Amino acid sequence: MADNSEAKAREAIKVTLDVDEIPKKWYNIVADIPGGLPPALHPGTKEPLKPSEWEAIFPKGLIRQELSTERFIDVPDEVREALARIGRPTPLYRASRLEKALGTPARIYYKREDLSPTGSHKPNTAIAQAYFNFIEGVDHLTTETGAGQWGSALSSAAAYFGMKCTVFMVKSSYDQKPYRKYVMKLYGADVYASPSDRTEFGRKTLEKDPGCAGSLGIAISEAIELAVNSPNTKYSLGSVLNHVMLHQTVIGQEAQKQLAMIDEKPDKMIACVGGGSNFAGFTFPFIYEKLKGKNDARFIAVEPESVPSLTGIKSGRSRYDYDFGDTAGMTPLLKMYTLGHDFMPDPIHAGGLRYHGMAPTVSALYDKGIIDAEALPQDETFVAGELFTRTEGIIPAPESCHAIASAIRHARECKRLNKEEVIVFNLSGHGLLDLQNYATMLGM
Amino acid sequence: MADNSEAKAREAIKVTLDVDEIPKKWYNIVADIPGGLPPALHPGTKEPLKPSEWEAIFPKGLIRQELSTERFIDVPDEVREALARIGRPTPLYRASRLEKALGTPARIYYKREDLSPTGSHKPNTAIAQAYFNFIEGVDHLTTETGAGQWGSALSSAAAYFGMKCTVFMVKSSYDQKPYRKYVMKLYGADVYASPSDRTEFGRKTLEKDPGCAGSLGIAISEAIELAVNSPNTKYSLGSVLNHVMLHQTVIGQEAQKQLAMIDEKPDKMIACVGGGSNFAGFTFPFIYEKLKGKNDARFIAVEPESVPSLTGIKSGRSRYDYDFGDTAGMTPLLKMYTLGHDFMPDPIHAGGLRYHGMAPTVSALYDKGIIDAEALPQDETFVAGELFTRTEGIIPAPESCHAIASAIRHARECKRLNKEEVIVFNLSGHGLLDLQNYATMLGM
Repeated sequence: MADNSEAKAREAIKVTLDVDEIPKKWYNIVADIPGGLPPALHPGTKEPLKPSEWEAIFPKGLIRQELSTERFIDVPDEVREALARIGRPTPLYRASRLEKALGTPARIYYKREDLSPTGSHKPNTAIAQAYFNFIEGVDHLTTETGAGQWGSALSSAAAYFGMKCTVFMVKSSYDQKPYRKYVMKLYGADVYASPSDRTEFGRKTLEKDPGCAGSLGIAISEAIELAVNSPNTKYSLGSVLNHVMLHQTVIGQEAQKQLAMIDEKPDKMIACVGGGSNFAGFTFPFIYEKLKGKNDARFIAVEPESVPSLTGIKSGRSRYDYDFGDTAGMTPLLKMYTLGHDFMPDPIHAGGLRYHGMAPTVSALYDKGIIDAEALPQDETFVAGELFTRTEGIIPAPESCHAIASAIRHARECKRLNKEEVIVFNLSGHGLLDLQNYATMLGM
Repeated sequence: MADNSEAKAREAIKVTLDVDEIPKKWYNIVADIPGGLPPALHPGTKEPLKPSEWEAIFPKGLIRQELSTERFIDVPDEVREALARIGRPTPLYRASRLEKALGTPARIYYKREDLSPTGSHKPNTAIAQAYFNFIEGVDHLTTETGAGQWGSALSSAAAYFGMKCTVFMVKSSYDQKPYRKYVMKLYGADVYASPSDRTEFGRKTLEKDPGCAGSLGIAISEAIELAVNSPNTKYSLGSVLNHVMLHQTVIGQEAQKQLAMIDEKPDKMIACVGGGSNFAGFTFPFIYEKLKGKNDARFIAVEPESVPSLTGIKSGRSRYDYDFGDTAGMTPLLKMYTLGHDFMPDPIHAGGLRYHGMAPTVSALYDKGIIDAEALPQDETFVAGELFTRTEGIIPAPESCHAIASAIRHARECKRLNKEEVIVFNLSGHGLLDLQNYATMLGM
């Protein structure tokens, strides 16, 4: 590394940014969706929801963001400081060892969102949400969690601002993932298996089905009910809504700078989708560029075959329509690709991808043909995760394995066609708390 | 962060280095130990071991390092590249939120060795050891692991160079920590509970005591036996030996640069000790400075009360003498602080700190009064870990909790005396695979 060319080669392994390059603005894609975004509707009147009608569950600062059509929104200094503490900016890595194993002429890069203290991209929005609640005097946040990534992130963010946090954790995960529960409790959160006896909706659900394994939709209903009925308490959602996508755009903005630093332009950008937030955060800033004619990338959202909210449109398993975000029907109606709010997903190992709906922003982009979607079988994703572990040295989250498996498919296609291509994917999280899933799937 | 003073304030939260600032030399403290380091002895003849006598278990490149008295030794480019891939240089963080919670005038910093893919400082030497074996044609490494940090690191490093890896894991950990076992298997390693039926020593041990829970000493004996009896196979040790301490000095050299960047001089440098490697890597470059009169820091090695290899000298529980590194007496004799090679430690939760001996280099420095040692009770360390989690947002490994608990003690003393002091500790690893230990200790 004595001379310049060597230093340059090294940079391509790992592209870093300084702390003061944490983005100063969030990018709001609502400003650029052709034809605009269909508004959220009141479940009773079916009229567009007024700002005041969101206030039972969210603070005003987040409602303003949720309804904003401004293209750029300031990131408060306090949030940028907290983002530095959780490890931002995150590095961009070249997957050269994976490339070599595949024998592909493609150049593969990945953004390392696994490096946050709770192991995923979720703290990017957890911190912002906790902050905007905190400055309006809220002292208690409620939420749901499936696999546990979101619950961990919000517990940590609440602790950061000295707030109480209550998490309703889908019962099947609560029982199978004690480690995630301990993470949240270590951060000081109260964690309940959902359906629980803490809410009326939970009690009703248990009455009908005492052995109910729970779902994200049920847990959301419980968290909202507790927020509405408790003093100084608001609800926090880890995906789907516009303000959540907005907060995640720090990922893509950093990746833009990093790719520019090494003179690369992405041909394909790949991320997994459950509710859509890591995909949105990673791709939206590049989609903005593309809409301005500044790149010609394809954007690929990867979902599990068994939860095909986007790709299921072809077989009629999903539809693009107004639906509830939760099971009880307490949320506003959102126009989204949905499997139906009473959808009970298979117990697949990528718990973060089991949600019935897709973010309205991501849905609108898919509807307009601006982004693509793929559905992958579970076994292929774990085999991809194992190959990634042995080549790149990092154990990916089962969710992120979907992005990796898709990147591998595209890299193999490059090999077949002898075609150079730049493939960039988002490594949304690590799998250190998902090892039992690997052991089950790979027969260890 | 528009102006300089703001940027400077942000820097103090997180001090980063560029990839090309990964150290180019390792620092070898053997060159500077007053009076030199007592040599390793042949267990039979009690004569200083000749280089050729190490060759049954180690490659020549590592033996040269083990016996070297050169002050600086080149880090090969291939090793520096691998260090970049595992996340080096690691950031230095200011623990300002912990400071605030303690109300201390002390400034506390920590080096983040938790950010490697396997979650600890161990890959720093695993990579170097795998490399020096690889270039001599070795294609199979054997080792032992207690808590699993070392076994994970070596499995990952072996995968990096395309080598086979066999890990003997202390049986009590093997049974209690399935996640660590899965990590190693995901990297492609073979993992056996020790004592095992794969070696003569293991079989003998099981014959005498079929329910034997194992110990690091027993697992080392098994790993060495397998290495000696297998083709193209060498043994790898994760701590204690000079070359291991050497490889870890990248930590302290980075920290030197980082503290200089923010104009800080350490008053106290703190790290936990089992075999001594994270303490050594963190402090040795600063001890070199101190011996030259360039700083006046105190260096504090923190061990568990129940494994007092250093502090036990006062009560007669430990001695400074030649002893074996393993239970079967297959290793060379090393001059070290030791609880005896047949020591069976209490089943404490900081598995990485349960070793009976202390690195000869660390031992010599303690004997000469150049470093200090403290012993802490287990419950205090977990309470410290919980406070660190809630303030700094990172769940520390139980081993690292010892360093944190000591830093907290010293910071509280600063408060009592109203004394500014710069306290820097090494966060040797994260605790995401040790959550059951937290749950047990904190009653979650």
